[in-house]
Amino acid sequence: MTISIAHLGPPGTYSEQAAVFYVNWLGKSSGVETILCAYPSISQSLHAVAKGQTQLAVVPVENSIEGSVTMTLDTVWQLDGLQIQLALVLPIVHNLISCANSLDSIQTVYSHPQALAQCQIWLERFLPQVQIIANNSTTEALERLEQEPTTATIASSRAAQLYNLPILAKGINDYPENCTRFWVVSQEETNAGSEKPKPSVSHTSLAFSLPANVPGALVKPLQIFAQLGINLSRIESRPTKRSLGEYLFFIDVEADSNETQMQSALAELSIYTEILRILGSYNVLPVSVL
Amino acid sequence: MTISIAHLGPPGTYSEQAAVFYVNWLGKSSGVETILCAYPSISQSLHAVAKGQTQLAVVPVENSIEGSVTMTLDTVWQLDGLQIQLALVLPIVHNLISCANSLDSIQTVYSHPQALAQCQIWLERFLPQVQIIANNSTTEALERLEQEPTTATIASSRAAQLYNLPILAKGINDYPENCTRFWVVSQEETNAGSEKPKPSVSHTSLAFSLPANVPGALVKPLQIFAQLGINLSRIESRPTKRSLGEYLFFIDVEADSNETQMQSALAELSIYTEILRILGSYNVLPVSVL
Repeated sequence: MTISIAHLGPPGTYSEQAAVFYVNWLGKSSGVETILCAYPSISQSLHAVAKGQTQLAVVPVENSIEGSVTMTLDTVWQLDGLQIQLALVLPIVHNLISCANSLDSIQTVYSHPQALAQCQIWLERFLPQVQIIANNSTTEALERLEQEPTTATIASSRAAQLYNLPILAKGINDYPENCTRFWVVSQEETNAGSEKPKPSVSHTSLAFSLPANVPGALVKPLQIFAQLGINLSRIESRPTKRSLGEYLFFIDVEADSNETQMQSALAELSIYTEILRILGSYNVLPVSVL
Repeated sequence: MTISIAHLGPPGTYSEQAAVFYVNWLGKSSGVETILCAYPSISQSLHAVAKGQTQLAVVPVENSIEGSVTMTLDTVWQLDGLQIQLALVLPIVHNLISCANSLDSIQTVYSHPQALAQCQIWLERFLPQVQIIANNSTTEALERLEQEPTTATIASSRAAQLYNLPILAKGINDYPENCTRFWVVSQEETNAGSEKPKPSVSHTSLAFSLPANVPGALVKPLQIFAQLGINLSRIESRPTKRSLGEYLFFIDVEADSNETQMQSALAELSIYTEILRILGSYNVLPVSVL
């Protein structure tokens, strides 16, 4: 069996690294073949799964320093019909990759906005005068670095290896405890990559909108889980894009949606929400186990 | 009396526009003189107030399409000691400003990441092949446009007027109902700009962290307000930057912090939170009233 996996490209992104970890993890116990497919944006990786061009996508959802990857949340809500199969947590170490001889000769730094934001204190301290240019991915500008020795890119050490480029400064992220959570998503009906038994599915992600102009409307959904002793590990709000002050909520619950208690929580939740989507029940895989 | 106001520059940004609206609003009933001071980033505008370089700053906090301006939330939390004096809601209409004769000759589009994100569908449809470059502000690249006729910038029509540059495409934001909420902030002790009576202060913004590893810890704070019939108009989470899964919460409450009910809510809230900051009580000014 062959599984195709969409991820943010060009090769060498943290998303690809997460996809490689996922492939290694799959490989441990199955004879599944995998093909990695690079897409130019996170949104296009998710659209690839929705259209059936690939069976899975690995997308970043949240970084411990910069917070939500809003493009992932907005696209997952908009596409509907996608399902989270697994979450991966990847430690992130950013490096300044450049063919320049020293920091002094650098005039431009390229990277993904999340990576740039995660290194902003370092950039202000060591490269206060450079032009910062945001790209769709950490690796988009890597192919140009050799021709442009006054430029640099912030990316992983794996990216430097892949493109055979020198690292000018290692571990430049502002906070050492930097990690990103990724989701492995499929179409709702597909079971691709999920043949492994899931003995202890630990998390469920939900997204919902609330009826407009109901004071305290968010309290009830949260109470339902609190009263059943089900812990929420995360709550995030996103604009509905209809009008200022109307939100969608993304909630991560520490329970399997098939548990009896969760079933009744979800039934009750559907009463108090406008649209309720169960984005998937899954395990969270720390990369240290790989 | 003279009041200096920091805002994201160079001139022509939506932040400056919000600052101008604020000045006009002030001017209606007082003889206050104002000086606008452009800073190269939102963070630096807020630092200017914290250091006493200016008395006020006008900063974007939330857009109806793209959501929170995380740099504002993170900096306000980090600086402590700032106080919101007023909120302004500004309708946002983005334009493609360029000296190019037609869309076909454009190779590069510059703007602030929020503006780029608010026009992403338009960009994908009409300029699918161009390089998108994120700047610190919508106006940063405007001075280069004349020298670089293959480039364009997404900014306001007021910016086009200020720099005497042509608009190639009007109203290119993906959603017509696009507006941004701004905060006018001062140092906590200062009363600059607040001599006006505040007969009906309508909102209070709070930020807090929660004790770690307490299941359902967020429910209690929300319950306090619900039980007192105080409506929450917004809740936003941001990472504490300590470890993945630990959050700060930013809450907007529809009440004045000096009301008796709010005083008891805040007293109770301080029991269930780790750090609790009252960011200010203020009115929200729709720009239509100006």
